[in-house]
Amino acid sequence: MTETTLATVIETLEHAYDPAHAEPWDAVGLVCGDPGQAVRRIVFAVDPVAAVVDEALEWNADLIVTHHPLYLRGTTSVAADTAKGRLIHRLIKNDCALYTAHTNADVADPGVSDALARAVGLYPPYRPLSPIAVPGLGLGRVGVLPVSMTLAKFAALAAQGLPRTAGGLRVAGDLDRLVKVVAVSGGSGDSLLGTARAAGVDVFLTADLRHHPASEYVESGGPALIDAAHWATEWPWLAEAAERLTSALAAKGISVEARVSDTVTDAWTTTAQRG
Amino acid sequence: MTETTLATVIETLEHAYDPAHAEPWDAVGLVCGDPGQAVRRIVFAVDPVAAVVDEALEWNADLIVTHHPLYLRGTTSVAADTAKGRLIHRLIKNDCALYTAHTNADVADPGVSDALARAVGLYPPYRPLSPIAVPGLGLGRVGVLPVSMTLAKFAALAAQGLPRTAGGLRVAGDLDRLVKVVAVSGGSGDSLLGTARAAGVDVFLTADLRHHPASEYVESGGPALIDAAHWATEWPWLAEAAERLTSALAAKGISVEARVSDTVTDAWTTTAQRG
Amino acid sequence: MTETTLATVIETLEHAYDPAHAEPWDAVGLVCGDPGQAVRRIVFAVDPVAAVVDEALEWNADLIVTHHPLYLRGTTSVAADTAKGRLIHRLIKNDCALYTAHTNADVADPGVSDALARAVGLYPPYRPLSPIAVPGLGLGRVGVLPVSMTLAKFAALAAQGLPRTAGGLRVAGDLDRLVKVVAVSGGSGDSLLGTARAAGVDVFLTADLRHHPASEYVESGGPALIDAAHWATEWPWLAEAAERLTSALAAKGISVEARVSDTVTDAWTTTAQRG
Amino acid sequence: MTETTLATVIETLEHAYDPAHAEPWDAVGLVCGDPGQAVRRIVFAVDPVAAVVDEALEWNADLIVTHHPLYLRGTTSVAADTAKGRLIHRLIKNDCALYTAHTNADVADPGVSDALARAVGLYPPYRPLSPIAVPGLGLGRVGVLPVSMTLAKFAALAAQGLPRTAGGLRVAGDLDRLVKVVAVSGGSGDSLLGTARAAGVDVFLTADLRHHPASEYVESGGPALIDAAHWATEWPWLAEAAERLTSALAAKGISVEARVSDTVTDAWTTTAQRG
Amino acid sequence: MTETTLATVIETLEHAYDPAHAEPWDAVGLVCGDPGQAVRRIVFAVDPVAAVVDEALEWNADLIVTHHPLYLRGTTSVAADTAKGRLIHRLIKNDCALYTAHTNADVADPGVSDALARAVGLYPPYRPLSPIAVPGLGLGRVGVLPVSMTLAKFAALAAQGLPRTAGGLRVAGDLDRLVKVVAVSGGSGDSLLGTARAAGVDVFLTADLRHHPASEYVESGGPALIDAAHWATEWPWLAEAAERLTSALAAKGISVEARVSDTVTDAWTTTAQRG
Amino acid sequence: MTETTLATVIETLEHAYDPAHAEPWDAVGLVCGDPGQAVRRIVFAVDPVAAVVDEALEWNADLIVTHHPLYLRGTTSVAADTAKGRLIHRLIKNDCALYTAHTNADVADPGVSDALARAVGLYPPYRPLSPIAVPGLGLGRVGVLPVSMTLAKFAALAAQGLPRTAGGLRVAGDLDRLVKVVAVSGGSGDSLLGTARAAGVDVFLTADLRHHPASEYVESGGPALIDAAHWATEWPWLAEAAERLTSALAAKGISVEARVSDTVTDAWTTTAQRG
Repeated sequence: MTETTLATVIETLEHAYDPAHAEPWDAVGLVCGDPGQAVRRIVFAVDPVAAVVDEALEWNADLIVTHHPLYLRGTTSVAADTAKGRLIHRLIKNDCALYTAHTNADVADPGVSDALARAVGLYPPYRPLSPIAVPGLGLGRVGVLPVSMTLAKFAALAAQGLPRTAGGLRVAGDLDRLVKVVAVSGGSGDSLLGTARAAGVDVFLTADLRHHPASEYVESGGPALIDAAHWATEWPWLAEAAERLTSALAAKGISVEARVSDTVTDAWTTTAQRG
Repeated sequence: MTETTLATVIETLEHAYDPAHAEPWDAVGLVCGDPGQAVRRIVFAVDPVAAVVDEALEWNADLIVTHHPLYLRGTTSVAADTAKGRLIHRLIKNDCALYTAHTNADVADPGVSDALARAVGLYPPYRPLSPIAVPGLGLGRVGVLPVSMTLAKFAALAAQGLPRTAGGLRVAGDLDRLVKVVAVSGGSGDSLLGTARAAGVDVFLTADLRHHPASEYVESGGPALIDAAHWATEWPWLAEAAERLTSALAAKGISVEARVSDTVTDAWTTTAQRG
Repeated sequence: MTETTLATVIETLEHAYDPAHAEPWDAVGLVCGDPGQAVRRIVFAVDPVAAVVDEALEWNADLIVTHHPLYLRGTTSVAADTAKGRLIHRLIKNDCALYTAHTNADVADPGVSDALARAVGLYPPYRPLSPIAVPGLGLGRVGVLPVSMTLAKFAALAAQGLPRTAGGLRVAGDLDRLVKVVAVSGGSGDSLLGTARAAGVDVFLTADLRHHPASEYVESGGPALIDAAHWATEWPWLAEAAERLTSALAAKGISVEARVSDTVTDAWTTTAQRG
Repeated sequence: MTETTLATVIETLEHAYDPAHAEPWDAVGLVCGDPGQAVRRIVFAVDPVAAVVDEALEWNADLIVTHHPLYLRGTTSVAADTAKGRLIHRLIKNDCALYTAHTNADVADPGVSDALARAVGLYPPYRPLSPIAVPGLGLGRVGVLPVSMTLAKFAALAAQGLPRTAGGLRVAGDLDRLVKVVAVSGGSGDSLLGTARAAGVDVFLTADLRHHPASEYVESGGPALIDAAHWATEWPWLAEAAERLTSALAAKGISVEARVSDTVTDAWTTTAQRG
Repeated sequence: MTETTLATVIETLEHAYDPAHAEPWDAVGLVCGDPGQAVRRIVFAVDPVAAVVDEALEWNADLIVTHHPLYLRGTTSVAADTAKGRLIHRLIKNDCALYTAHTNADVADPGVSDALARAVGLYPPYRPLSPIAVPGLGLGRVGVLPVSMTLAKFAALAAQGLPRTAGGLRVAGDLDRLVKVVAVSGGSGDSLLGTARAAGVDVFLTADLRHHPASEYVESGGPALIDAAHWATEWPWLAEAAERLTSALAAKGISVEARVSDTVTDAWTTTAQRG
Repeated sequence: MTETTLATVIETLEHAYDPAHAEPWDAVGLVCGDPGQAVRRIVFAVDPVAAVVDEALEWNADLIVTHHPLYLRGTTSVAADTAKGRLIHRLIKNDCALYTAHTNADVADPGVSDALARAVGLYPPYRPLSPIAVPGLGLGRVGVLPVSMTLAKFAALAAQGLPRTAGGLRVAGDLDRLVKVVAVSGGSGDSLLGTARAAGVDVFLTADLRHHPASEYVESGGPALIDAAHWATEWPWLAEAAERLTSALAAKGISVEARVSDTVTDAWTTTAQRG
């Protein structure tokens, strides 16, 4: 086994998650770091935030691979007078690169929503909920439960399969309704609400749903809805991506250490309820 | 005390909630019903949904006043082949009018966020978080707690003051942080995140916050955040609006029966959590 | 012969006038009414105006089929404080549905301009003046007169074939010019002026032409122009649509009564001329 | 009395019809001709069309002043392969300039609609129907009839005051309705329909009205409508403009011959009616 | 040999330079003149400016063919109170037509950049730098030098091949760099900078380059750059176009006199340098 | 004299060049670096390019102040796989900050064009060529020469006052024309061509002028034009900005070393001319 460079790691990652498949508005790829630098240790995480950078630098990581871009919209400054700029300074000074696989990982096969589908107990094969122009790829996944069960029971099952967050899962629709065909989409899924309805699924599990779309969806007799933490729906993918990268590198005779961050980066740290 | 017409009720409502103060994209005012019809019973509710119409028709209401528009974006059909069209048919056939006071109620003095501020324990006077061109009016409110307290304690206090919903309140930020100056905004408040930060408040309580804005807000050292159910943040206003209308009508020698719907129209009816 | 429902009538109408063929900006289909209601009597009319609704309700019609949409642009209110809202209230209270076949009837084969072509004396077969993507369909029709005749004679012939309106037909171009190939387009045809010129027709008959386009058209040596009342150019289609619907229903063993409104809904009721 | 140049004539015209008051989308001023050329004979006309140029060149005119622009939208060619380019070639070769006063003449005081108001029998003073930012100026005029009269009678009166065109005037609304306050606007007035309704006038006389706006206007209980030929509503202004120019030049000791074209340039030359 | 008309000359020119191949924003074709007029003498020039019109009228030319449009953006006036309007008046009064072949000549095969490629010493065959949808056509040309040479030597060679202008050629990049594959584009080539880099050429010669694009290009390690006078890069095409037209006419038995204007219409007439 | 921090240097710079006065599309301020770091040595330069960074790092500079932004349009990556990203990595690793004062320095009083006006020999006072909303500030400057001189002589004078670049100055217009009132604008001045003409100046000196605007300007009888290298027109400001900063810091008892980069960063390094 030999050492490798960032360029080789990126080439391997992009074989699995082709940047050409990212949405036009997305910002994927290398954010900082030098393609020629050596890479021994890699951290996989959902969000490029300070706690994740702390964890990576303590472990002497050479690379952080995140799902979310640091700068989704362009910036004209990386000065250390903003939180994001401070991260850039820390990363560059510590020779730790940052790389993003976002919507290209969402649409990949297997991708973010495959891992989510498996985590919440759906049986493969999964089909894309919203296919893109490239055959076989798309956003979200549709799968089936091994048996029909009530919405309440599926929600409990899904909660067990996802990492714990303060708010857990929120459920909309008749709890006694039997469900079997399920759509899932990691991250903010409101743009797929209509697609999930048209697909005839029994329930749609995603994140970041707001009152009006959710209320109108249920009111109009659509599928039931389950809203999980954005972070929790994408975290299951990290282990799979890490495994996929290390295996592919190993096949080239390259050894790296990869680690999935277990820092919960969901924004909400606790809940409060009327007594 | 004499009977009255819908036209008179509307005139009285619009004295309190001037439609001219609504946002340009909003759709406030009479949705169905005839200005000449008699009005004896009025239901106040947050959402114009089937459960609310059921409640109103059972009580033989002549008018439902809601905060949310039925058709925020225009429609070219009210046929009974959609959930909204079925409501229109039921309302017209039962001579029950529907009237909306939305962003004009948000910016009014007192308005939706005044009731929310009081409900979560803030001391008056309240000042608008985001003033509009009309002096004294604006979106959101800033107020102070009677004493400094931890974020955790304020969240518990706020939860007691709001109606119960499945998900309760979600909290982001250091739970031991002391808070005293608080911004609140009924409904979806993400457009006011920057304003609340610039206002220097300790915590901002609103609804419908998504992962990315919330995470970036906390990451950049902004105020703490509390996210409540959209419905729960606007419900406190209903009683005040009902009282304000009946008092103003009584002053004209007119008697109507007003009632606040206690149907919880939050989309989420339960939660699930990893054991 | 059995009774039928609105759903069945709509399905039959849409076999003839496919809503998928309507322009993207158009608003066709059911405007009010319940798909499950029974339908016995149907009125066909060009415009959904008060006089037409009067006529329909006096006859106890269950459905009005019009060419023009009531709400071409979306509305956020159907309250009875506008003329259109008053129609919605009257229709719903009297269980009379309203259905629109507009640009999908224009492009259908046969469609609105086929009836117009026949009314003004053109010989079939007619070909679309402006084809759409669906083979065989399009806006306007081109046909030929049985013999060449002067523009003046053709205008007189066309006037005899169309229902009487206050303003009659207006003619631009050399009255002695011989014409044989004719383009017609029911309703406002100014967007087709260039198409008619490119098609090499001798005269173009349509409605709602304004001074500048008409003047520039004639000035640049284009075809002659005849401008009729918008209503008069679309009325000939009503009888054909009614016949087509009742025949198709009869073939399914269903009997309905259909009637073409003869209320002139042209805006102009009289003319005045310098003595 | 001395000869004068085009520059002096333009300066005098623009004192009456300031180009700065034209709409931003308009194209007023000198279209062809040389400011230094001598001007002895001037023709005033509504439309810059071939028949008007024929008339001007036969009379050896040095300048044609029209209300309508030749090129309202810009052109990249004046080649003689189009009708408009042929006019440019004839005008330049014959040293005949072309000048346009369009929306600056509409809003002037007195302007196009003042002449129209007087022609149809309204009593001064007239006030602008739609004022612009410059005090006293605006589009359209509102005036009163000396006595209330039926709509039918006013239409007959207006027809007598305007030049004869093939189609005459078209009238919408109750013919027995009494009218006294009248709005007029020379040319296409549909953008002013709402303004005329808000102004509370009894009848609005203008040109180029189409079926849908006219029908909805009358259906919603607005003022009555009279639609005249576009040309006929603007022709009355020509004599006034000619007089105004020649007087102003005479006051400077300059003599020119001015003539109003009596060529009817309405596009419609005859009508046909069902027998 | 017989005389010919402008229509025939245009038809012949457009066989070589098809107006359908011009960019959508371009304005090519006949600017003034009458298709029926006789044509005996034709001047070819880059710019339709006063000095070129002087030269043409002195020679009694019937037609000027220019590369640049007189009115690239539309005009609403050709009055003689602007420089361009004065040209129109002079041309029409002297029966001299003006015709433009612009981007249709750029993309033609052979076209403007073929002549440029030959002038600066490139060996054919040339391929389009930026192909358009029509096979074989495109903007710019890529060709090779007979031998590799330094950038400094190629710049000297190119300078010898182009007509002299005050500023000559400006060169960016390492002067000792060896170059062999060269891209050229007549006129303003900054929109093709990225294309030239992607094409892997050694040097790109064009005109009108500004500081920022040029600096970023060189800074990022792109090809070397040579910036010539806009006029100088397009002038070589004139002789070829003249030859092509006269030959094609001769093949039809038609004789015309054609002449290439040698008036330098580069804006810059001299330079100044720190001593 | 004491040491200082980047924050203090920025505060002092922004007193002279207020970021609030920059154009809305501009990107001024700190690009990289930490406000808390110490600053002892500062380099002033026009362009943030590799040669300037080399110079700064060799001198152990803590800060580079440039006129041009590194990222005028936003970037989503600063990875070292682009020329700009490599600069960011080198700067951050070497604790050298980068700060930009662009259009805020252009409009300042004194600003970039004041230094240019003085360099080319104009007499103060200078007035803004294109004032902005803040009184006294604006783009470009207008000044006068001590005596009238020919355009040729002024061009020679200006060439002596500006730093040498390969292309020197290019001149358009009659070389014998006498000039006295002069407009100058550092950098690309084509957006000010109309303003300079309206200001009635005799000559306008700026940079980056292209063939079409320059040719039309001269053709229509406007002022003469002088086009210098973009870099050369902005370089004179650097010394003044450096002096202004060090003086203001000295007044606070702070000592820094400032140095003006004399690296020529004009893109063009040589010229070639036909023999």
